[in-house]
Amino acid sequence: MPAGEFRHPSPPPPRPGSEEEEEWVWGRIKTEARRDAEAEPALASYLYSTILSHSSLERSLSFHLGNKLCSSTLLSTLLYDLFLNIFTTDPNLLSATVADLLAARYRDPACVSFSHCLLNYKGFLACQAQRVAHKLWTQSRKPLALALQSRISDVFAVDIHPAAKIGKGILFDHATGVVVGETAVIGNNVSILHHVTLGGTGKFGGDRHPKIGDGVLIGVGATILGNIKIGEGAKIGAGSVVLIDVPPRTTAVGNPARLVGGKEQPTKHEEVPGESMDHTSFISEWSGYII
Amino acid sequence: MPAGEFRHPSPPPPRPGSEEEEEWVWGRIKTEARRDAEAEPALASYLYSTILSHSSLERSLSFHLGNKLCSSTLLSTLLYDLFLNIFTTDPNLLSATVADLLAARYRDPACVSFSHCLLNYKGFLACQAQRVAHKLWTQSRKPLALALQSRISDVFAVDIHPAAKIGKGILFDHATGVVVGETAVIGNNVSILHHVTLGGTGKFGGDRHPKIGDGVLIGVGATILGNIKIGEGAKIGAGSVVLIDVPPRTTAVGNPARLVGGKEQPTKHEEVPGESMDHTSFISEWSGYII
Amino acid sequence: MPAGEFRHPSPPPPRPGSEEEEEWVWGRIKTEARRDAEAEPALASYLYSTILSHSSLERSLSFHLGNKLCSSTLLSTLLYDLFLNIFTTDPNLLSATVADLLAARYRDPACVSFSHCLLNYKGFLACQAQRVAHKLWTQSRKPLALALQSRISDVFAVDIHPAAKIGKGILFDHATGVVVGETAVIGNNVSILHHVTLGGTGKFGGDRHPKIGDGVLIGVGATILGNIKIGEGAKIGAGSVVLIDVPPRTTAVGNPARLVGGKEQPTKHEEVPGESMDHTSFISEWSGYII
Amino acid sequence: MPAGEFRHPSPPPPRPGSEEEEEWVWGRIKTEARRDAEAEPALASYLYSTILSHSSLERSLSFHLGNKLCSSTLLSTLLYDLFLNIFTTDPNLLSATVADLLAARYRDPACVSFSHCLLNYKGFLACQAQRVAHKLWTQSRKPLALALQSRISDVFAVDIHPAAKIGKGILFDHATGVVVGETAVIGNNVSILHHVTLGGTGKFGGDRHPKIGDGVLIGVGATILGNIKIGEGAKIGAGSVVLIDVPPRTTAVGNPARLVGGKEQPTKHEEVPGESMDHTSFISEWSGYII
Amino acid sequence: MPAGEFRHPSPPPPRPGSEEEEEWVWGRIKTEARRDAEAEPALASYLYSTILSHSSLERSLSFHLGNKLCSSTLLSTLLYDLFLNIFTTDPNLLSATVADLLAARYRDPACVSFSHCLLNYKGFLACQAQRVAHKLWTQSRKPLALALQSRISDVFAVDIHPAAKIGKGILFDHATGVVVGETAVIGNNVSILHHVTLGGTGKFGGDRHPKIGDGVLIGVGATILGNIKIGEGAKIGAGSVVLIDVPPRTTAVGNPARLVGGKEQPTKHEEVPGESMDHTSFISEWSGYII
Amino acid sequence: MPAGEFRHPSPPPPRPGSEEEEEWVWGRIKTEARRDAEAEPALASYLYSTILSHSSLERSLSFHLGNKLCSSTLLSTLLYDLFLNIFTTDPNLLSATVADLLAARYRDPACVSFSHCLLNYKGFLACQAQRVAHKLWTQSRKPLALALQSRISDVFAVDIHPAAKIGKGILFDHATGVVVGETAVIGNNVSILHHVTLGGTGKFGGDRHPKIGDGVLIGVGATILGNIKIGEGAKIGAGSVVLIDVPPRTTAVGNPARLVGGKEQPTKHEEVPGESMDHTSFISEWSGYII
Repeated sequence: MPAGEFRHPSPPPPRPGSEEEEEWVWGRIKTEARRDAEAEPALASYLYSTILSHSSLERSLSFHLGNKLCSSTLLSTLLYDLFLNIFTTDPNLLSATVADLLAARYRDPACVSFSHCLLNYKGFLACQAQRVAHKLWTQSRKPLALALQSRISDVFAVDIHPAAKIGKGILFDHATGVVVGETAVIGNNVSILHHVTLGGTGKFGGDRHPKIGDGVLIGVGATILGNIKIGEGAKIGAGSVVLIDVPPRTTAVGNPARLVGGKEQPTKHEEVPGESMDHTSFISEWSGYII
Repeated sequence: MPAGEFRHPSPPPPRPGSEEEEEWVWGRIKTEARRDAEAEPALASYLYSTILSHSSLERSLSFHLGNKLCSSTLLSTLLYDLFLNIFTTDPNLLSATVADLLAARYRDPACVSFSHCLLNYKGFLACQAQRVAHKLWTQSRKPLALALQSRISDVFAVDIHPAAKIGKGILFDHATGVVVGETAVIGNNVSILHHVTLGGTGKFGGDRHPKIGDGVLIGVGATILGNIKIGEGAKIGAGSVVLIDVPPRTTAVGNPARLVGGKEQPTKHEEVPGESMDHTSFISEWSGYII
Repeated sequence: MPAGEFRHPSPPPPRPGSEEEEEWVWGRIKTEARRDAEAEPALASYLYSTILSHSSLERSLSFHLGNKLCSSTLLSTLLYDLFLNIFTTDPNLLSATVADLLAARYRDPACVSFSHCLLNYKGFLACQAQRVAHKLWTQSRKPLALALQSRISDVFAVDIHPAAKIGKGILFDHATGVVVGETAVIGNNVSILHHVTLGGTGKFGGDRHPKIGDGVLIGVGATILGNIKIGEGAKIGAGSVVLIDVPPRTTAVGNPARLVGGKEQPTKHEEVPGESMDHTSFISEWSGYII
Repeated sequence: MPAGEFRHPSPPPPRPGSEEEEEWVWGRIKTEARRDAEAEPALASYLYSTILSHSSLERSLSFHLGNKLCSSTLLSTLLYDLFLNIFTTDPNLLSATVADLLAARYRDPACVSFSHCLLNYKGFLACQAQRVAHKLWTQSRKPLALALQSRISDVFAVDIHPAAKIGKGILFDHATGVVVGETAVIGNNVSILHHVTLGGTGKFGGDRHPKIGDGVLIGVGATILGNIKIGEGAKIGAGSVVLIDVPPRTTAVGNPARLVGGKEQPTKHEEVPGESMDHTSFISEWSGYII
Repeated sequence: MPAGEFRHPSPPPPRPGSEEEEEWVWGRIKTEARRDAEAEPALASYLYSTILSHSSLERSLSFHLGNKLCSSTLLSTLLYDLFLNIFTTDPNLLSATVADLLAARYRDPACVSFSHCLLNYKGFLACQAQRVAHKLWTQSRKPLALALQSRISDVFAVDIHPAAKIGKGILFDHATGVVVGETAVIGNNVSILHHVTLGGTGKFGGDRHPKIGDGVLIGVGATILGNIKIGEGAKIGAGSVVLIDVPPRTTAVGNPARLVGGKEQPTKHEEVPGESMDHTSFISEWSGYII
Repeated sequence: MPAGEFRHPSPPPPRPGSEEEEEWVWGRIKTEARRDAEAEPALASYLYSTILSHSSLERSLSFHLGNKLCSSTLLSTLLYDLFLNIFTTDPNLLSATVADLLAARYRDPACVSFSHCLLNYKGFLACQAQRVAHKLWTQSRKPLALALQSRISDVFAVDIHPAAKIGKGILFDHATGVVVGETAVIGNNVSILHHVTLGGTGKFGGDRHPKIGDGVLIGVGATILGNIKIGEGAKIGAGSVVLIDVPPRTTAVGNPARLVGGKEQPTKHEEVPGESMDHTSFISEWSGYII
C-alpha cells in the first residue's frame, strides 16, 4: 500500500523535538527530493536548487524564502543572508520549523511529503518568515520586520504582524487571506485554515488581539476579534465571527458565534501522528448539533 | 450602441464546441488586441508579446501562463514548454479554454472582450493552469503538478488541488481566495465567485470534498464543506456555510446554510449568451425570501 | 515616551488638504526613512531606492508602484512613466494620496509611520494605483486601465474595477481579498478591512454596485451586494452580508445583515487625528447589542 | 532598387543640425519600426516597447538605455529617470544623438536603417550613455558617472572614461573593446572601429591621452597612446600602434606606426551622404603603398 | 590515464556526420552532465535545467540560448520558441552544431567535455545563434536577424553579421571580440581565435569581406580585411593584419602580413581527432622562420 | 590640493599585507561609500546594497560578485553562498583582494578611490572571481570552476582559465578581452592592460602558456604565446606579439617582438605607492628606442 508507506515511514521517527528529529526530517526531505528529481526531470533543477544543493534545512529554507520574498528593491541575496543569519543564531526557529513540517505532514491529508510542504505550502513558508520577522521585532529592528511582513503579505497573501507570537507545530492550511494582528498569541499545535482573521478591537495601543490556546482548530474564514481567549483544544467553525471567550475543548460556530458543546476527551490529533485524523473532520462532527 | 456591438458580434459565432468556434474566438482575440494596440501605444508591446506574436491560442496562453507563473527557480521557458506540450497533446484542454472564455464573456458583465479575459482574469488563468496540473496528476507526475498548484496559489491566490476535476465553461469571477480540495468535482457551466471554498471534511484519505453540479452558481465567500452534492442549477448565497446536500435548482443561504426554495424553470443563462442575465443577479432574486 | 512622539509629532501638521500638508507629509517620510536607514543598514538600500533618492512624493510613489506592479511583459520603466505622468497632470491624485497616508497613520494603530504605509501597505498602494487606473478609464484608455487592475489584483490581491470612484482619506487595512465592482462609489474617510466585497447584482450593464457614504466603517469579510446605499458614518459588522440600504450612522451586522441601532453623535474619528480611536473598536461597541 | 531606396529616402532630409532634422529622423525611426513590426510579429513587442510607445526620441533612447544598462543593484527605473532628465535639460545631447544616427546610417554600409542603429548598435548606445556620464562628470557627480562607465563597459564592452570629450557625428563601428582614456578628446565626424584604444601615458594626473581631430578614421585594433594629436582627416591603419603626432589628412600604419602619405583633397565622406564611400575603404587605398 | 579516457572514449564514435553521431554526442553530453551533477550538488540545478531536463540536443541548446540572449524587452520564452522552431525545421543546423562540438572537443586542449562546450563556450554559443540569425536573414526576416546579432554582440562580445556564411566544424576559441562582416564566408573546420576580425573594405554595398577556406587557422587578434581569399589549410599568425590573398596551406604573419612559407602536406588536424595536435601549435612551428 | 588628499590619506596606511591593512582598506571603502551616498542620492541605494549594508569586505565582495555573475540558471544566492564560503575558508584570497585594491588605487591614475575599484573595475572583479574558481579547481570541483569562468567571460569579457595561477597586487586595467590560458602563471604586482593574451602553443596537454614574473608590465593588446618566461620587471609594449623569453627588467616590442634594452635600476613602482609613477608611462620611455 504505497500511501501507507508515506504515512508510516520506517524506521520510526526519533523522539519529538530532539536534534535527531531535525536530522531525520531533513534526511527525509532529501530522500523525497532525490526520488522526485529522478522521476521528473522537468522538476529536477528546481529540486536541486531549493533542496539538494544545500547542506542543511536552514540553508535550504533560507534560500527558498530569499528567492520567494525578494523584489527588485529587496534582493534575494540580502534576504538569504538575513534569514540564514537569524536561523543560525536562534536554534529555536529551526525546531519550530521541524514541528511545523511534522504538523503539515501528519495533520493535512493533502500533504504527501515533507518536501511538498517545505517547497509549496505558502502557509508554512509565511509562518517561517514571520518567525524571522518576529525575531527582528524583538531585537528592535522594526522597520526591517515590517518590510518583511509586507513582502510576505504581497507574495503569500498572508499578513501576520511581526509582533505576534506563534508557537510550534502550526498548520496554516491553504493560508490565503490569513490576517493576524499585533498582539495576537498563537499556542502550539494550532491549525488555522485560510481566510482566518485574528483581528484587533478596542482602544488604540493596547492588547487588543485574540489569544489562541494549544491545539485549537480554526475553520475556514473564521473571524476572531478582540483580546479574547480561545481555550486549549477549542474548535471554531468555518465562517464564524467570534467576539467572546471560548472555553477549552469547546466548539464555537455561527455569526456571531455561539458555543455548541464541549468534549471531555478531545482527539489529541497532534499527539498521534501515525493515526492522525483529518483536521477538517471536526466540522462534520459538530454539524449534528447545529442542523 | 457600442456595448451591444460587443454583446452581439456579427457574424454570429459558430456552433458551440466546434473547431470553428475555437478559430472564431482566437480570431476575435486577435482583432481585439490589434484594435487595442493601435489605440493605446503604451499597451501595444504587451499585446504583441502576449497575443499578436503568436500563431495560435494555445501558444499565446502557454506563453502568458509561463511568464505569469515562473519564478527564479522555475523558469518561464520550462513552464512555457510544459504548457505548450500538454495543450498540444490534449485538445480537450483548449476546448475547455474556449468554453471558459465564452463563459466569462457572456456571463460576466465586467468582461468587455475575450482578450480582456485571456490576459487579465486571474480566475481564468488559474483554471487553465490547474487543468494542466490535473493532466500531470493523472499521468502520475504529482510533484510537478503540486509545484504548479503552489505557483498558482502564490501568483493568483487561487488554490485548486491538481486532483480536482473541473468541467468546461467555468467562470471563476475575481477569484482571489478560491480554494478547491483534492476530491472536489466541478461540473460544466459553473460560476464561482471569489473567496469560495470547496473544502474537505471527514476522516483521512477518503472522498471528502463537494461535488458541484452543472450550472451551479456559488456566491462570494461561500464555504461548502464535505462530500456533499450541490445539485444541477442550484444557487449558493454569498457568505453561506453549506454542510448539507443542496437539491437541483435550489437555493441555499446563511451560516449554516438552509434551503430557501427551488425554481421549476431556472434561467439557463449559459445557453442564451446574447440575452444572458447577470450571474450575480440571483442574489437579489432570492433575497426577497430571506429578509 | 517614544510612542507619543510618533503620535503627536511637533510642530503640528498644517491645515488638512493644503499644499503645505503635502510638503509636510513628504518631509516626515524622508525624515523617517533617513532615521530607519541609519538604524538598519540592511534596509538602507531599499529606503534610498524607494524614498530617499526621489525629489518628490509622486516620484517616490510612481517608482515604488512601477517596481511592484511590473511583470516580464509590462516593464517597470513603462509603468513608472505612466504613473509619474498621471500624477503630474492631475494634482488631485496626490492630494488623495496624502489624505490616505494621514488616514492610515492616524486610524490604524499598527501604522507606526508614514513611510511604513507608503512602502508596505498593500491596501494603500493598490488604492493609489487604482486611482491612476480610474483616471485612464475616464480618458477612455480602458484596456490599459484593465491591465492595471489585473496587475493590482495579482500583486496585492486587491481587485478594484477602474471605473469605481474612490474618495480621499481611505484606509484599506490589510486589504487582501478586497473586491470592488464597476459601479461602486466610495466616499471620503472610509475604512475598509480585508476580504470586503462591494459586489454587483441585478441585470446586465446597469448601475449594480454599492454606494458607500463618507466615514463608513466596513468590518473584516463583510459582503455588500447590489446598488444599495450605506449611509454616512454607518458601520458594517465583520462577516456581514448586506443586501439592504443602511441608514447613516447605523450599524448592520449578521448574515443576512440586520440593523442594530444608530448613534446620534458618532465619533468622528477622521477629524481628530491626534486623539484618534482605533477604527476596529466599533465592533466591541456594538457587540453588546448582538449577544 | 530597394537598397537605393534606403540610401536616398524622399523627401530629402532637412538641413543638418536643425530641429527639423531631429523630427525627421525620429519620424523615420517610427516609420521603420512600424514597417518592421508589421512584417515580423515576433519583433513587434520589442519595437513597440522600445520605439513605438514613446512620444520622442529622447524618451525612446532613455528607455532603451535604462533597460540595457540596469542591473539588480542599479534599477532600470532609476537609470531611465536619470537619462531622461539629462537629455531633457541639455538639448545638445539629443542633437549629438541625431548626428550619430546619421553617421551610422550613411557611413556604415551594414546599417540598414536608423532604427537598426538606435536599437542594435552597441557603439552608438555606449556613446550616448557616455555623453550622459560626461554631463554628470562636469556637474561633479563623479561617482554616478563612474558607475555608469562601469555598466557601459560590462554591457557593451566599451570603456570610455566619463571625462573624455566626444564630438558629434561619431561612428563607433562594432565597438567591442574600445577603450578611451580620461583626457582624450574626439572631434566631430570621427569613425572608430572596434578594439581601438585611445590610451594614456606619462606621469600621473596630467593630460595624457590622444586628441583626435575632425573626420579622423581609426582602423580596427589601432592603439593610440599618449597626449598626441591625430590631425583632421587623418587615417590610422588597422592594427597600428601610434605613439607620435599624425598630421592632418595623413595616414599612419604599422607597429610602431609610420606615416605613409597624405592626401590633399580627402574624401569628405561625412558631407556627401548620398554618395558616401565605405569608411573601411581607406585601408585598401593605402595598402598599395605598403606591400 | 584519465585524460586519455576523455580523448578516446569507448565505444568509438559513429561515422562523422551521421545521425548516429548526433545521438552519440547527445548521449555523451547527458552522461557527462549526470556525472557532474552527482559530483557537484551546487551545479546540479544548472545542469538539470540546461541539459538533463531536455529530451534532445536542439531543445537543450534552444533553452540555453534563449536564457542567455534574452533581455527585458526580448523575452526568453520568445527566443526559446524561435530557436527551437528554426532548429526543428532545418536539420542542417543541428548537424553543424554537432560538428562544432566535436571540433571544440578534439581541437581545443582546454575543452574537457562536450557539455563544457555546450554550456560554457561563448564562441560555440554565438556561432549557433548566428546560424539561426543567418537562417532568418535568408528568409528575409532581417530585422529579427539583426536584433539577434545585437544580442549576441552584447552578451558574448562576438559580432557576426547574420548574412555571413559559416561552415561546419568551426571552433571560435575564447571568442571575445570576434567580428565577422556581412559578405564574409567561412569554410568548414576553421579555427578562429579571439579578437579576430574578418572586416570590410572597398566601396559601399559590394562583396567586401574575406573568404576563408576549409581548415584555415586564424591566430589571436588577426585582422583580415577586404574581399580576399585565405586558401584551404592556410594559417594566419597572431596579431597579423592581412590585406592580400593567402594561398592554400600557406602561413601569413606580421603587420602588414607577408607569406612565410607553405607546407605540402599540412596536418589535417580535423581528420585525426584522436591524435589531434593543438591548434595553437602552428605559431611555434613557423616562429622559427620569422625570428 | 584635493587630488593629493586622495593619494596620501592620513593617517598613513598600516604595514602592507598585515591584517590591519585589510581593516584599514575596508574602513576606507566604507568612508568613501558613505561620502558618495550622501553627495549623490541616486547612487545611495547602490552603495548601501553593495557596501554599506555589509559587515566585512568579503561579504560585500561576495554579494557584488554574486549579483554581477548570476544568470537565470545560476542564481545570485547560490553564487553569493559559494563566494562567501570560499573567501571565509581561505584568508589568502582576501589578502590578495586587498593587495589588488591597493594596486589599482596607487598604480592606475584613473582610480579615484578604493570603492571605485571594488564596485566598478571589471578587471578587479574578474580577478577575484577567478581566484575563487582557481580554488575550486584545486579542490577538483572543475565543472563548477569552468561554469564560473564562463560567467566571468560573458559578464566581464575577461577569460582566465581557472587553473591559471595569479599572484597578488595585480592590476587588470580596463580588462576587456584579456585571455589567460590554463597553464599560465602570473607573479605578484603585475600590471596587465586590456586585450592582452597569455595564450597557448605546443602539443596537446602539456605546460603551454607563459610565465609572467613579478612586477611585469604588459601593454595594451600584447599577445604572449607559449611556455615562455617574461622575467621580473620586464615590460611588453602595446600590440607586441611575444614568442620568446624576455629577460628580467627588459622591454620587448613589436610584432614579432624584439628586445629593446634593459634597465639596471627599474622603478619599482609597486614598492613606492605614495610616489607611484603611472604604469602606462613606460611606453613613452622606451619609445625613443624604436622610432
